[in-house]
Amino acid sequence: MNNQYVETQYYTFAQAPNELVLKSGIKLGPITLAYETYGKLNADKSNAILIFHALTGDAHAAGLHKDSKTPGWWDLMIGPGKAFDTNKYFVICSNVIGGCKGSTGPSSINPATGKPYGMGFPVITIEDMVVAQKCLIDHLGIKKLLCASGGSMGGLMALEWAVRFPDSLQSAILIATNYKHTAQQIALHEVARQAIMSDPNWNKGDYYGKELPAQGMSVSRMIGHITYMSERSMEEKFGRKLQDKEKVGYDFSHDFEVESYLRYRGASFVQRFDANSYLYLSKALDYFDLSEKKDLISVFKGLKNKFLVVTFTSDWLYPSYQSKEMVKAMKANDLDVSFIEIETTYGHDSFLVEIEGQSKLVEHFLNNVPK
Amino acid sequence: MNNQYVETQYYTFAQAPNELVLKSGIKLGPITLAYETYGKLNADKSNAILIFHALTGDAHAAGLHKDSKTPGWWDLMIGPGKAFDTNKYFVICSNVIGGCKGSTGPSSINPATGKPYGMGFPVITIEDMVVAQKCLIDHLGIKKLLCASGGSMGGLMALEWAVRFPDSLQSAILIATNYKHTAQQIALHEVARQAIMSDPNWNKGDYYGKELPAQGMSVSRMIGHITYMSERSMEEKFGRKLQDKEKVGYDFSHDFEVESYLRYRGASFVQRFDANSYLYLSKALDYFDLSEKKDLISVFKGLKNKFLVVTFTSDWLYPSYQSKEMVKAMKANDLDVSFIEIETTYGHDSFLVEIEGQSKLVEHFLNNVPK
Repeated sequence: MNNQYVETQYYTFAQAPNELVLKSGIKLGPITLAYETYGKLNADKSNAILIFHALTGDAHAAGLHKDSKTPGWWDLMIGPGKAFDTNKYFVICSNVIGGCKGSTGPSSINPATGKPYGMGFPVITIEDMVVAQKCLIDHLGIKKLLCASGGSMGGLMALEWAVRFPDSLQSAILIATNYKHTAQQIALHEVARQAIMSDPNWNKGDYYGKELPAQGMSVSRMIGHITYMSERSMEEKFGRKLQDKEKVGYDFSHDFEVESYLRYRGASFVQRFDANSYLYLSKALDYFDLSEKKDLISVFKGLKNKFLVVTFTSDWLYPSYQSKEMVKAMKANDLDVSFIEIETTYGHDSFLVEIEGQSKLVEHFLNNVPK
Repeated sequence: MNNQYVETQYYTFAQAPNELVLKSGIKLGPITLAYETYGKLNADKSNAILIFHALTGDAHAAGLHKDSKTPGWWDLMIGPGKAFDTNKYFVICSNVIGGCKGSTGPSSINPATGKPYGMGFPVITIEDMVVAQKCLIDHLGIKKLLCASGGSMGGLMALEWAVRFPDSLQSAILIATNYKHTAQQIALHEVARQAIMSDPNWNKGDYYGKELPAQGMSVSRMIGHITYMSERSMEEKFGRKLQDKEKVGYDFSHDFEVESYLRYRGASFVQRFDANSYLYLSKALDYFDLSEKKDLISVFKGLKNKFLVVTFTSDWLYPSYQSKEMVKAMKANDLDVSFIEIETTYGHDSFLVEIEGQSKLVEHFLNNVPK
């Protein structure tokens, strides 16, 4: 970002009585979305790209904040001369409703009670999250996105956007994602949720201003980390390396580096993420099923958008075969879709760390999206 | 077992001052092992097969107890005319030290205090578990086993036996196992342990006669179940099937069958297994590394035993490549080893449920073990 700092912005909408009607039928409002933008919107507003983040991500996708040395979560992909080239494109990243990074979610104050929503927050879906972001894009005066893109949960959102608002985007890049959550994906989330909800400090979601459900969050994050890596990347990074001894201790201290790593990542999670948001967002993912009401081929019928679908060989959380099913259904509709499986060892995390291959694909794809 | 009931037997040894010296250097005794036998030991005691169970298994491998309708955990493999044919072989299955199914473990009374050991139980290893079972086999007057076999943790034990007491067995069948626990295997156990230890009812292992750490055990078991199945078997068994509604509820009740299944299996685990035993046994597995002191090829040097190594294509917890490394090291020593990877969708559970393929292999292998 050329030493320019980026700032998070906020857009509030859906004020009563014009609240947003969620998929569940429940109304929600007012809604605030935290978002960031990088690059400049051109005169005819035709160079906008919307980036969706993953489960525990946020609006800070690129550049640096003035008060932090941590670059955005996809900074290697977004910036001048990078894959999402901010010299050419106006890149937007918005936090999701249900989240805890500046957008309306369970930790927000419920205007009806003056207290945090907690578990009184309505259950939200991927569809609801996308509809809320559509309000933001409308507010920015953008009628048609050049592209919508994201990895993991972000990929689901980009896919949902393409199917729900096909006339409002030219193209979509779907990375390490799926068109419906499978039994294993639901199962892994359910264990993480149960870990949080079994922590007595979780207290049915009413822990704001009190002791946080740190133990439950830690266990849930440890599960997450294992699923984001691959068997091989764990072996390469940790193997059986010992933490701080020449020998295993034959006791219950953390002998192995992988144990300390997971405990550390687990323990720090509660500081950076809200437990209830984790419950709501993971549940939103589990509810997602694009083929819920009609078969997948029919879902894609009539779309004119250009698609790029990317998977990673070592990603066992969102294995390639799931994307292939989606691509097959797109092709059955003669859609303009490219599918690439990138050889990596990083597992599901590949969409965050495998930059070279993704950059080439994204750059080439965007160059060929009709303006 | 032809309507004959089987009974669990008990052998107590290592009475002070002849306690067993564990790998950690700590002494343990007296030690009781629960075990069962099926079939008849022949006159020259040359038809004995020792079966090792998996992490939460027990001595009841086959047949029926008088007071229960649940057959042993490997009843489909052990019995008259079955793979481990009790018309021909004398089959022994012993519970492990550290366990909670009749053998000395953390829930046993510590003779020094008159109270359960709890976390005062010494940390044990796979080696210790095998050494204890060697005492049982000596007690039964068996000098040389025809075969030692087991799946998962049982496979590690059979392998350890073969390497530690090579002259005391003719052959070993190692199923869905590994020669050292990998980073991912350790990581998955560590999350399960942390889930138990974060439960306030765990109370540093001092919960006997008090409220059990049910929530922690439940979460740990849910993790276990996911790792024992395959992505495909979960999809085939559950997919996105709903529990008891025509539609998802968009709330935090258990919408999906896979969620209810895991919660049910989790909740029942605390009734059938001791939390501290889970900690000790999972740690024993994580400590296991046959190549800890010398390279794997050297480990197998000089062995004359016959080996059968079996893996399953869908087993992602103990993937085939790990067994292949072991087989390669055996072959480098010109060992008589057969390796078979069976095509299944059941994941790690295959060793318990895929009977046809395993039976053929085991039967043929045992027929060809020199008596």
